Amino acid sequence: MKKIVIASDSFKGTLSSIEVCHIIKEGIKKIRPEIHTYEVPIADGGEGTLEAFLNAVGGKKVVKTVTGPLFDKVEASYALLSDGSAVIEMAQASGLLLVEGKENPLETTTYGTGELICDAIEKGCRKIIIGIGGSATNDGGVGMATALGVKFLMANDEQIVPTGEGLAMLDRIDVQSLNKKIADCEFIVACDVDNPLYGENGAAYIYAPQKGANEKMVKILDENLKHFAGIVHRDLGINLQQYKGAGAAGGLGAGLVAFVNAKLKSGINILLDTVDFDHLIMDADLIITGEGKIDGQSLRGKVPIGIADRAVRHHKPVIAVVGSIGDETEALYERGIHAIFSINQRPESFDIAKKYSKDNLFKTVESIMRLISVIE
Amino acid sequence: MKKIVIASDSFKGTLSSIEVCHIIKEGIKKIRPEIHTYEVPIADGGEGTLEAFLNAVGGKKVVKTVTGPLFDKVEASYALLSDGSAVIEMAQASGLLLVEGKENPLETTTYGTGELICDAIEKGCRKIIIGIGGSATNDGGVGMATALGVKFLMANDEQIVPTGEGLAMLDRIDVQSLNKKIADCEFIVACDVDNPLYGENGAAYIYAPQKGANEKMVKILDENLKHFAGIVHRDLGINLQQYKGAGAAGGLGAGLVAFVNAKLKSGINILLDTVDFDHLIMDADLIITGEGKIDGQSLRGKVPIGIADRAVRHHKPVIAVVGSIGDETEALYERGIHAIFSINQRPESFDIAKKYSKDNLFKTVESIMRLISVIE
Repeated sequence: MKKIVIASDSFKGTLSSIEVCHIIKEGIKKIRPEIHTYEVPIADGGEGTLEAFLNAVGGKKVVKTVTGPLFDKVEASYALLSDGSAVIEMAQASGLLLVEGKENPLETTTYGTGELICDAIEKGCRKIIIGIGGSATNDGGVGMATALGVKFLMANDEQIVPTGEGLAMLDRIDVQSLNKKIADCEFIVACDVDNPLYGENGAAYIYAPQKGANEKMVKILDENLKHFAGIVHRDLGINLQQYKGAGAAGGLGAGLVAFVNAKLKSGINILLDTVDFDHLIMDADLIITGEGKIDGQSLRGKVPIGIADRAVRHHKPVIAVVGSIGDETEALYERGIHAIFSINQRPESFDIAKKYSKDNLFKTVESIMRLISVIE
Repeated sequence: MKKIVIASDSFKGTLSSIEVCHIIKEGIKKIRPEIHTYEVPIADGGEGTLEAFLNAVGGKKVVKTVTGPLFDKVEASYALLSDGSAVIEMAQASGLLLVEGKENPLETTTYGTGELICDAIEKGCRKIIIGIGGSATNDGGVGMATALGVKFLMANDEQIVPTGEGLAMLDRIDVQSLNKKIADCEFIVACDVDNPLYGENGAAYIYAPQKGANEKMVKILDENLKHFAGIVHRDLGINLQQYKGAGAAGGLGAGLVAFVNAKLKSGINILLDTVDFDHLIMDADLIITGEGKIDGQSLRGKVPIGIADRAVRHHKPVIAVVGSIGDETEALYERGIHAIFSINQRPESFDIAKKYSKDNLFKTVESIMRLISVIE
């Protein structure tokens, strides 16, 4: 064995993907210092996405004061990569963590996310990757689009308040003053959900409750998104409801499709394409991936599955090290994961185990490498 | 890979060694049905020893009514193996589980264990293996020896009561009427402790408290064992205190040495010799061992270490699957264990995890075999 590619997600709540990859490397090197390792910390568009791209491509963080989800001022970071593209996490400007204790998706806006996009464009970026996990909003992306110059007008010609509630007053959309540079930009949205914009599987019904909406609010939010979609269809000729994932981040997915012609793409694949993962694994003998919890029930957007899909194409073996193995692992083996090892060294609750997660991961990788060395 | 030898201890409190070996075999066969497997469930002389030997050699169980530790009648089993030898667990006749609620090592006797030995000899056995874990006694083995015909006499020529307390009255020992067939018998004691007969590391001080003795009783028991050793030295010319392990099972180890010329031997090695383990692993590609809990602190008498010691001689790789990995695993690797895998699939307490121990063990072995299949 000469080369191992390490491509892991974070272990949510315990270790970042950068930490996980680093510990796996240390475990490999302890037993087999001569093996060449290559670390690819993965993020799916949620927390840790900036760091994962900065780690993979290089670049710098930009900190910008923008409009927060409740129209207050917040400091938000995004990444300017060395290849000239930008990576924006919507949660930095419009995320749920910014409204703690005041959650209310009727009153929140994605305006700040639009300001981050503007700033990246002003700095010359023409490729913008947007991660949309952890949103506090349900505004269909009108806040973001307003910041880019789109006018969402009421019957009295005034602009609506760009929030989940404000959408109810929308009469027509005017895209004449949209930032002209947008036309030259490529927008890619890291999106790992299938939800449509509205309806029983839509943004409001599925995600608004965890953003603070009660039953009545959910109903209003859903009606407002449907109303918004109708106006977009009439004024721009785009049927947002046909886009899978348009309901991501309170409909920000839909807004990015409608106003900046974004492509929705799996978060993992954006990163894997950015690092040219297929090329990277071409001469690898083994790929080690990782995830906090893995099971066979929901495979969409899971890092180990994204890695396995690539590995299968090149007939490369993938093993997964995970914090917790759930049910129906057979489905994972069928997708191309060859073996799964839990890092738990002892029977103990998560509250205790998480204190030892670094050591447990290291020891698990050590034993895997010891076994490999015996068999090789 | 063509042959795997499976040689595991029990996972105490969850799975017997027979179950563990069987589950490991099933895990191997699921992924690699063509691999030849050979199961050697191990026991160290304690609980499960009869089954382990019956499984390894074949034979039958004999049930016999004998004198219990408190001079009541108990039903005790021992094994008559097909090779003509017998395996006796002292705990079956004189064990702590038989005195629950009435623990008192001043008043308990190993007489029943002697009766089992007599029965085996009467049935023609000339090689007797005695497992001595879990005793309720502290009588120096005088109960056992009395059953075999030895006379432990008081100054008034009457026999003492053969208990921990009775030893105080011992004036002299008469071995004239010892069962004559004993001379033709080979006795092997499965003993994995180092304790001398008496003194601060002796039978009474170290083990009597867990058999129900308070501080005062411990002191009496220790003095009585010392007194007993003095009489044995004077009358038989044997210095029991020089034997490591003489303090095992309340001094039954000493009694077996003094009166039947027993050899004290590590429990694992007795079984491994019985199955000719060295020959068995000669053409094996891998040995899988197991244990409920493993750590590097106390290696004596541990099954994986006993297995590793044999494997090292023949340059065979050993991996361990365990319920719990403790500290200082480096010491285990240095002894010849190549890799250690915990069976825990999730962070959860032992109370929950033990319900899934079969499934967890199976899945762990499955993943190990999957990894092996990728690497081979």
